[in-house]
Amino acid sequence: MSSLPFAIDIEDVKFVLFEQFRIHEELGKAEAYEEFDRETYESMVEECARLVTEVVQPINGNGDRQGCSLDAGNVTTPDGYGAAWSAVAEGGWINPAAPVDAGGVGAPHVMYMTVTEMMIQGSMAFAMYPGLTAGAANLLLHHAPEPWRLGICEKLFTGEWGGTMCLTEAGAGSDVGENRCKATPIDAEAGLYHLEGEKIFISGGDQDLTDNIIHLVLARTPGSPPGTKGLSIFMVPKYEFDFDSWELGERNDAVVVGIEEKMGIHGSATCTLALGANGPCKGWLLGEEGQGIRIMFLMMNEARIGVGAQGVGVAAASYNFALAYAKDRKQGSSLADMRDPAAPRVPITVHPDVRRMLMTMKVQTEAMRSMLYRLGYNHDLAISFPDKAEASNGLVDLLVPVLKAHCTDTGFEVSAMGVQVLGGYGYIGEYPLEQLCRDAKIASIYEGTNGIQALDLLGRKLRMKGGALFMGWMQDSLKLCAKGKAAGFEEQAAAIEKAINQTGGAAMHLGQLGGTGNFAAAAIQANPFLSQMGTVHLAVECLHQALVAQEAIAARGETPHLKGKLLNLDFYVANILPKATAWGKIVRSGDQSCMDEILFA
Amino acid sequence: MSSLPFAIDIEDVKFVLFEQFRIHEELGKAEAYEEFDRETYESMVEECARLVTEVVQPINGNGDRQGCSLDAGNVTTPDGYGAAWSAVAEGGWINPAAPVDAGGVGAPHVMYMTVTEMMIQGSMAFAMYPGLTAGAANLLLHHAPEPWRLGICEKLFTGEWGGTMCLTEAGAGSDVGENRCKATPIDAEAGLYHLEGEKIFISGGDQDLTDNIIHLVLARTPGSPPGTKGLSIFMVPKYEFDFDSWELGERNDAVVVGIEEKMGIHGSATCTLALGANGPCKGWLLGEEGQGIRIMFLMMNEARIGVGAQGVGVAAASYNFALAYAKDRKQGSSLADMRDPAAPRVPITVHPDVRRMLMTMKVQTEAMRSMLYRLGYNHDLAISFPDKAEASNGLVDLLVPVLKAHCTDTGFEVSAMGVQVLGGYGYIGEYPLEQLCRDAKIASIYEGTNGIQALDLLGRKLRMKGGALFMGWMQDSLKLCAKGKAAGFEEQAAAIEKAINQTGGAAMHLGQLGGTGNFAAAAIQANPFLSQMGTVHLAVECLHQALVAQEAIAARGETPHLKGKLLNLDFYVANILPKATAWGKIVRSGDQSCMDEILFA
Repeated sequence: MSSLPFAIDIEDVKFVLFEQFRIHEELGKAEAYEEFDRETYESMVEECARLVTEVVQPINGNGDRQGCSLDAGNVTTPDGYGAAWSAVAEGGWINPAAPVDAGGVGAPHVMYMTVTEMMIQGSMAFAMYPGLTAGAANLLLHHAPEPWRLGICEKLFTGEWGGTMCLTEAGAGSDVGENRCKATPIDAEAGLYHLEGEKIFISGGDQDLTDNIIHLVLARTPGSPPGTKGLSIFMVPKYEFDFDSWELGERNDAVVVGIEEKMGIHGSATCTLALGANGPCKGWLLGEEGQGIRIMFLMMNEARIGVGAQGVGVAAASYNFALAYAKDRKQGSSLADMRDPAAPRVPITVHPDVRRMLMTMKVQTEAMRSMLYRLGYNHDLAISFPDKAEASNGLVDLLVPVLKAHCTDTGFEVSAMGVQVLGGYGYIGEYPLEQLCRDAKIASIYEGTNGIQALDLLGRKLRMKGGALFMGWMQDSLKLCAKGKAAGFEEQAAAIEKAINQTGGAAMHLGQLGGTGNFAAAAIQANPFLSQMGTVHLAVECLHQALVAQEAIAARGETPHLKGKLLNLDFYVANILPKATAWGKIVRSGDQSCMDEILFA
Repeated sequence: MSSLPFAIDIEDVKFVLFEQFRIHEELGKAEAYEEFDRETYESMVEECARLVTEVVQPINGNGDRQGCSLDAGNVTTPDGYGAAWSAVAEGGWINPAAPVDAGGVGAPHVMYMTVTEMMIQGSMAFAMYPGLTAGAANLLLHHAPEPWRLGICEKLFTGEWGGTMCLTEAGAGSDVGENRCKATPIDAEAGLYHLEGEKIFISGGDQDLTDNIIHLVLARTPGSPPGTKGLSIFMVPKYEFDFDSWELGERNDAVVVGIEEKMGIHGSATCTLALGANGPCKGWLLGEEGQGIRIMFLMMNEARIGVGAQGVGVAAASYNFALAYAKDRKQGSSLADMRDPAAPRVPITVHPDVRRMLMTMKVQTEAMRSMLYRLGYNHDLAISFPDKAEASNGLVDLLVPVLKAHCTDTGFEVSAMGVQVLGGYGYIGEYPLEQLCRDAKIASIYEGTNGIQALDLLGRKLRMKGGALFMGWMQDSLKLCAKGKAAGFEEQAAAIEKAINQTGGAAMHLGQLGGTGNFAAAAIQANPFLSQMGTVHLAVECLHQALVAQEAIAARGETPHLKGKLLNLDFYVANILPKATAWGKIVRSGDQSCMDEILFA
């Protein structure tokens, strides 16, 4: 087994947190975070990076090869997953933003994003277990009934128990309203129901990491209306438990009957879960009947940001490994010596085409990280500062589908480029690149396919508050361009400004199509529009980072990392941003050839 | 195991062969092919499609799951590979263009491309065995010494024996001149050498399909100059054989010591081959000492076209399966009914975003097929008609790197899009899409990485004959645009014309950079330039097919397939061609930020 050194780019993480967003200053003004200073944040970053490097990443390759196994309803996770889970749970890393009264330390959400991205860099498959557990806990924190609300959250946030989300059924994927799973009341007062049905694609539907598992299950109560409005959500434990003593009781009949063979994330058990097939399956209603989808939707931004983080984390790991390989691998001579067969062989980092690939990976990884943290940071601003809530929530709402779709598509592309940098060695299991590429692909699919994200952006987000969210994004971005021009980035800022305005034009074009009732013509271009906006937004992130780097260079001198931010901007504007113009042209083409009914009949 | 129906689009194959290139008429004028009429060709296509559908494709999924195994130097291929090999060999499908005096039927090379692409649609991993066997035979046909030249070719073309190409070593991948494998003369007169060294990534380095295996091995003779000029090529059999009776003799010491775990093509054994490690490894020189790389290069166009065919074939299979799934899968209601939860569920082919994806897959698959067959057809024109040789060979030389790189990159993208069409089902092994995506990635890497192809296009092909090849391509393409405008495709042809001229401008820009000695600046943009040219060339293929379809509609009425060609042109020009403009802008940006020495240090 050839091993490439794994490293988390802590310098970049700190740059984003403390120089770009200055979270220690800005969030320090909020009561909730006044105990967190820069030193605390830094030690969190370093400690988590150490854990990921020493404990999580080393299990990733074997986890892929060994995968999960199922025996009589019980899932066994790969070797080392149990130890890694313990370390992650004990370190409080399942969700560092968990509130203190639910077993957490109450750090800002941007720190949760930071930890999540690092964890995914180490092992995307493993990181799904804490990710879904935290997701379930976050939902319960807002929607579990008292008096057991905080207690169950603590069980999850501390990693004693695990959590899952159970939405999908064989006939209900993107079309969640087609859910057929039944919930029949047993004791309405206690909120107790009997569940029957089958859920598929349940990540962590069973595992051997925790004493108990809390499934959050969408199901349909008797007489409920069709579609999503008839869905309710239930807390379905693997083992029943006493709500006071938290002692475990009977095995509930929520049992895994199959696990999927997949392209990647083999360490994450993707389960078919049978509910009430062979005995009583008890579920406790959360909220009220019919509120299931509304409650799920409240958690959706968080879940989608988490999947966006997978795009970022896999890209970061791919870039890290590709760079390490390229520095070490000698092939060919420099261009200047190309006619001399006896010339010294050089590391492939010397070759322009390899540098182009590495730079494409670097700039996209760093711009996506900036975008990811921006969303986490704005979530913190929104909950801490009432005067910032509207603008910050608006930005998050608008950018969530862009992050989820563009960063997962880009993450997959970056991971495929990582394979390419290694050539034949990229394709074989001896090196980690091909696994990252296989792992990455799922992120474009689950938690709402990227096609669904594009429709969300076009059909909901662009129209929210009469278009104010999108206009706000344009204005903020154009303001940054003005700042960039004034700071010496005239050409780059002008190119980005043009691309922002083109994005505005494309949005208006699609809005007009929708306005005239030609929804199909608009829907065809939803995905290209999202690519356009995503490509432009990452340019904005590059510009923001270049501005921050410029100031940092003035203050503390040039470093390779800071100079790299200036080069990122140049590279992105010259080599990636032109694609946004192409997407814009495509969006505005008016072409509807693919709708011709002679096709795909 | 859910199964999606597999089908080869015979209608499209016939359209390209008989309506677009009219091979039965054009090649019928050549003496070599005068016995082949349309009926013969059609029955070949149908018979091969039947074989692929009934015998080859059914082994593809299990071949992926089971993979190859190695025991004491002997490779076992997956279940069913042996039977499929026999059927392919008996049917004469290893190379239908093999000459009659070497056991073949002497069909045109365009038929070989047709068969190759169909075989890959069935199983890319399996198709590597006949592909490499034919490749070895084709090389021996030109370079094996008499009197055993035709005899050994017959053994290979009939599938009694298999063949491999042994170039790569651990330290010599893209940098083939770094080959260290040694060849020491034993009997110079007989051309007999002793070989020592280790070759890696040898596809089919051993297998259980054939009685014997012929390895074609690059090695270095004593006192040879450094680099590629010092390399010679040898015929190294697994079992020695009598050159008269062809009876097998001693086991030669060319032994597999390891097979690779890979991202895909699991059914193709990727072997580490040790030569002369434990006994004599005999090799017979082909050509003369020092001619190894020249001889290999003569076969390179063919090998690279074969890899380009993998991009096409995998795309075709992905499109086929994605379409079959989408027609069957019901999710959601039509856009018109989207507010009514009780509205009937519709096949996902109704949804605009799915249609966009399917159309992207369809048009790229069909345009790539057109390009692939064009190259095979021009090879036939070149060898059959002396007056056409220069132009046809020039076109093939120019387009080989474009086909190899652009069609494999596009094939991978199409296969990933196929995964996306199926959503969660695309990611699991129960459906064939994820395997196709994993299989596809290798084609961008081997037989010269796509980065190497881009440098070949820029550094060699554009400069050949003072740029005449490229100018010829531009002129032919512009001529077709003029024809398109006259035939009613004004807008589409004008857009393609513009993109062709932009490609010319980009080539000139890169040529000027090279001319001023700024090779690095040019080399950065080699790959984007290839993407630009590839994107434009596929538009030209769409235009050509639309023109042919228009005539066919006039002659025999509209059919869905023919109408589809007109829609392909509209869709490609509106939704894909704008990317070529973006590539052109990138190529001409002049940006060299990635070369800054502060990076990747």
